[in-house]
Amino acid sequence: MNTFGRKFKLSIFGESHGEGIGIVIDGTPVGISLKEEDFKADFDRRRSGARGTTPRKEPDLPKILSGVYQGKTTGAPIAVVFQNTNTQSRDYDEIKEIPRPGHADFTANQKYQGFNDPRGGGHFSGRITLGLVAAGFIAKQMLKDVKFDAQVIEVGGSKNIQEKIDEALKQGDSVGGIIECRVSGLPIGLGEPFFDSVESMISHLVFAIPATKGIEFGSGFEAAKMCGSQHNDIILNANGETLTNYAGGINGGITNGNELVFRVAVKPTSSISKTQHSYNQTKNKTEDFQIVGRHDACIALRIPVIIEGVAAIALADLFLMKE
Amino acid sequence: MNTFGRKFKLSIFGESHGEGIGIVIDGTPVGISLKEEDFKADFDRRRSGARGTTPRKEPDLPKILSGVYQGKTTGAPIAVVFQNTNTQSRDYDEIKEIPRPGHADFTANQKYQGFNDPRGGGHFSGRITLGLVAAGFIAKQMLKDVKFDAQVIEVGGSKNIQEKIDEALKQGDSVGGIIECRVSGLPIGLGEPFFDSVESMISHLVFAIPATKGIEFGSGFEAAKMCGSQHNDIILNANGETLTNYAGGINGGITNGNELVFRVAVKPTSSISKTQHSYNQTKNKTEDFQIVGRHDACIALRIPVIIEGVAAIALADLFLMKE
Amino acid sequence: MNTFGRKFKLSIFGESHGEGIGIVIDGTPVGISLKEEDFKADFDRRRSGARGTTPRKEPDLPKILSGVYQGKTTGAPIAVVFQNTNTQSRDYDEIKEIPRPGHADFTANQKYQGFNDPRGGGHFSGRITLGLVAAGFIAKQMLKDVKFDAQVIEVGGSKNIQEKIDEALKQGDSVGGIIECRVSGLPIGLGEPFFDSVESMISHLVFAIPATKGIEFGSGFEAAKMCGSQHNDIILNANGETLTNYAGGINGGITNGNELVFRVAVKPTSSISKTQHSYNQTKNKTEDFQIVGRHDACIALRIPVIIEGVAAIALADLFLMKE
Amino acid sequence: MNTFGRKFKLSIFGESHGEGIGIVIDGTPVGISLKEEDFKADFDRRRSGARGTTPRKEPDLPKILSGVYQGKTTGAPIAVVFQNTNTQSRDYDEIKEIPRPGHADFTANQKYQGFNDPRGGGHFSGRITLGLVAAGFIAKQMLKDVKFDAQVIEVGGSKNIQEKIDEALKQGDSVGGIIECRVSGLPIGLGEPFFDSVESMISHLVFAIPATKGIEFGSGFEAAKMCGSQHNDIILNANGETLTNYAGGINGGITNGNELVFRVAVKPTSSISKTQHSYNQTKNKTEDFQIVGRHDACIALRIPVIIEGVAAIALADLFLMKE
Repeated sequence: MNTFGRKFKLSIFGESHGEGIGIVIDGTPVGISLKEEDFKADFDRRRSGARGTTPRKEPDLPKILSGVYQGKTTGAPIAVVFQNTNTQSRDYDEIKEIPRPGHADFTANQKYQGFNDPRGGGHFSGRITLGLVAAGFIAKQMLKDVKFDAQVIEVGGSKNIQEKIDEALKQGDSVGGIIECRVSGLPIGLGEPFFDSVESMISHLVFAIPATKGIEFGSGFEAAKMCGSQHNDIILNANGETLTNYAGGINGGITNGNELVFRVAVKPTSSISKTQHSYNQTKNKTEDFQIVGRHDACIALRIPVIIEGVAAIALADLFLMKE
Repeated sequence: MNTFGRKFKLSIFGESHGEGIGIVIDGTPVGISLKEEDFKADFDRRRSGARGTTPRKEPDLPKILSGVYQGKTTGAPIAVVFQNTNTQSRDYDEIKEIPRPGHADFTANQKYQGFNDPRGGGHFSGRITLGLVAAGFIAKQMLKDVKFDAQVIEVGGSKNIQEKIDEALKQGDSVGGIIECRVSGLPIGLGEPFFDSVESMISHLVFAIPATKGIEFGSGFEAAKMCGSQHNDIILNANGETLTNYAGGINGGITNGNELVFRVAVKPTSSISKTQHSYNQTKNKTEDFQIVGRHDACIALRIPVIIEGVAAIALADLFLMKE
Repeated sequence: MNTFGRKFKLSIFGESHGEGIGIVIDGTPVGISLKEEDFKADFDRRRSGARGTTPRKEPDLPKILSGVYQGKTTGAPIAVVFQNTNTQSRDYDEIKEIPRPGHADFTANQKYQGFNDPRGGGHFSGRITLGLVAAGFIAKQMLKDVKFDAQVIEVGGSKNIQEKIDEALKQGDSVGGIIECRVSGLPIGLGEPFFDSVESMISHLVFAIPATKGIEFGSGFEAAKMCGSQHNDIILNANGETLTNYAGGINGGITNGNELVFRVAVKPTSSISKTQHSYNQTKNKTEDFQIVGRHDACIALRIPVIIEGVAAIALADLFLMKE
Repeated sequence: MNTFGRKFKLSIFGESHGEGIGIVIDGTPVGISLKEEDFKADFDRRRSGARGTTPRKEPDLPKILSGVYQGKTTGAPIAVVFQNTNTQSRDYDEIKEIPRPGHADFTANQKYQGFNDPRGGGHFSGRITLGLVAAGFIAKQMLKDVKFDAQVIEVGGSKNIQEKIDEALKQGDSVGGIIECRVSGLPIGLGEPFFDSVESMISHLVFAIPATKGIEFGSGFEAAKMCGSQHNDIILNANGETLTNYAGGINGGITNGNELVFRVAVKPTSSISKTQHSYNQTKNKTEDFQIVGRHDACIALRIPVIIEGVAAIALADLFLMKE
């Protein structure tokens, strides 16, 4: 469903080419400073503009409809809405004919019996994540002493990010990447066993972001190769500081006061200029086809701020649950 | 919190050395055959007994307290309870002194201000996952045409599983592993955007299982190295069958009818016989110490049936949501 | 919190004099016809205009931001937003000084530490119920064979409704009333024991409507005076039709196929023109004061369509739960 | 569904004649003293024994399976289980033939397609409310300064309670009653607009109790007869004390610091010894029949402690939400 959270609750809505998209955020404490322009820095990071990204030219300026009075949060739900202005009317019959490989065209059409809005990916569009960035920004304000830092650390299997992107651009292709997120300054004790571990909450949200394929905390998949004597982080003092951080800042699903570290695998954008081959539903046979328009060569570049956002959302909810 | 699910709802409870543990399962459809002995095969898989596992000698026979009448589910909540019989009274003061590295001792103590039950890991014990296996078994009965198959595919970075375990046993150490789960026979259309994608629901539950460090779907972390032209699975026909399965059976968070594939990284058991070094809270200094008792050399061996269980739970909930 | 429902989920937001108010409705099935003008008849009933009501002059035309494509619901969340246009800037310092008796001024101020939006009652304004009417209208479309009919049956203890209202108007006072709601054509079997009985779900929503003080189903408070031999509705046939309907269409929390009947007590509007006496926080003493502006003499007149709406919402959610 | 609560969460289960019934309570703060015998006083009140009640002879001693260690709550879920010992095997075929008027026999059978446990009312039995009393007791411990007092104030329309009960007993009949609950010592500010008002939360739970037909807060249905100038409670001082208490301690869904007052209408027990007339499903005609066994002449006598319990549960949840 389109809601998430126990005490810091989100309801997300919208389609890429509909009237607007947005999010309703319930449970924000009172008295937090909030203006529409505050979101700008985070939105700009999502929009990117770096080589390899194709930002839609929309201003992405949100409108706060409720929950803020005289520049401060009131405790009532905050509705943040974005108008969709740059929606070209286009022929989407082609998508109906050839469900794009790697996209939700086929599954959405089956699930919603053809009633879903197909324009620009509809409710499955990456544009919907703007709401996560907005909610994430508010969550960050709730966790004032916590520092979030997500970065693309690898693209196409290489640390030489720009090279890999240029290659993809030249080919009319796209390329995947890995994002690492580090969160420091967290209090000890966030996370609710049994089901709402820190990892459960963060991964739940990360896999709501289109194009994510994997997540690992601390040692992650490397842990599978290690021995316990090596993997057990030696505790150094009463604050719980550890010598190593294979745990990634979490024990038993609960923050231990060390840096929270996780990595997310992002697949190559499914929309590419290159000629592809797939099934044509009208002709009932496979055939070559091309997707027109400009595309992100590396969608991973635009996702770090969304990853920070969902980490902040999960941790803010757990913070309120703990209080 | 200790509840999960929208329509197929779980409430889990219990501590390793308390009176008993269990789970309440709400939302099961009527008329499903269920007897206490039906759980046995799945419980036996969790108990293992293979070299490298140290099953507690408990019978693990559950008692169904409610929700079943004349051998069929009634539609009322099913409470499944396991008595804790093999609980030796032991001195847990040592844990209070030296929080075990890699365990939840330190975080639980901080979070619950010392009121948590420390015996055998208390509510953080792997024993609590028995309830997941029970609920997973019921979920499997709800999805009669679906086949779940989880296996350990790698231990200590090697396909030669037994060798790696023997090595760890000899050293009084432990070793991690990777579990792969394959689910076939799924209908198209399970998964609820935006927040309750198939990946979100499964990962949420997987990270409730102690010792899990990572999860990836389909191509997973390999996707980060790939190009879109390679990663996009070519659709072959009207049923949505694809030539490759990098998507792992999911597009846009929704099952596409192909095999669902995911892998889980499991860390090496934190309890090892080998001498360790960590912080002693009473003495306020680090020191060498040893954890007595017999331990699992490779906890990953016991987790596949739990992984199948949580996959079944997530998919059963999504199945009921879709109806 | 500002969310409600299991499978038909609502998130409500807004303040009386903020940018706008609205509701996000998740879980609506696909393919239901919906246009902005469809809401009009229900909104008009809420606006009333009868003697004794003081409709704000706003058009109350909603904007559907999402979830509808080519005039049909898509299965994605439906966001319905109302702009606040007729908001006069006024001095609300007086409210801060003298919390209006019968209003939420005092409690809201205490709860939100003075950060709540006080203009026009803020998030506590009756205007927020517009969202319930919108969601209720959609719920009614989901239950096509069900007929909802709510009416004011009594005002000021009298069936002579207009007389009582005229009296109140003359005095600059207000007066309470009783609304009866009848729902026919319901399938047998809606309602989820133990906690989500039909009565639980409807009463939960009814008490979200400002000014409601009581609810009773079927025989209601009269049942307390009756004997079992009298109160037990004799079942007449295999369809469950009963000779009498003291049960009000519900047994064990579940619809029995007979007419669902409940009544709601509405208090007299708290805002009156008459001079009142209450506590002045600045002067720290009680004093006489007056509330300026025009008020509803009988708010009960505007509530029947909201009552129908919440009944439809509760029953639509239970309908989806049952499927 | 069988769960309730946001932060203080309940999962209830069991059938009257199954293995056992119980409740899982999640969200209890740490460090609250709790022993099995502590519940006794509240259970005894529910069992009653007064003339007009027919307590089943079961000991009703609960077993705490989890969540308590060394006599204190641990923060983990508390599972409280009651064995069903006094379950006579009886022929329930008669119920299948003649669904008892006023009972859930007909609706349960339809809803669960005949798979429900019919013995002793199954999951619809009043016995399930034992779990509410247990959870209510724990909730009361969380609200140490709050005093709960519920009493039967009227039976059969008369204050002369015993007389009305004796009359019913003599006739082999039953009689309804009204319970009033007063809660004092509440902090200002409990209750969450929009949907989780104090009245919404309490009424939701009250209507989960079998036999309840109505609820009113403060002035309740009398409010419908009153004028605003009369109904508005004059605030007297900075603490929010009011001269009158028509509001019943709640404004805008939020506690105002005055006594919380509500009344609940309870119908006459549906099970009576007197000959009744209803539909026989096998013979497909109506006929006279009698329900054997001893019955409560006035079930209202046993409900006050349950009413206190659900009020405590609702307020404890709102208390945790506010923190």
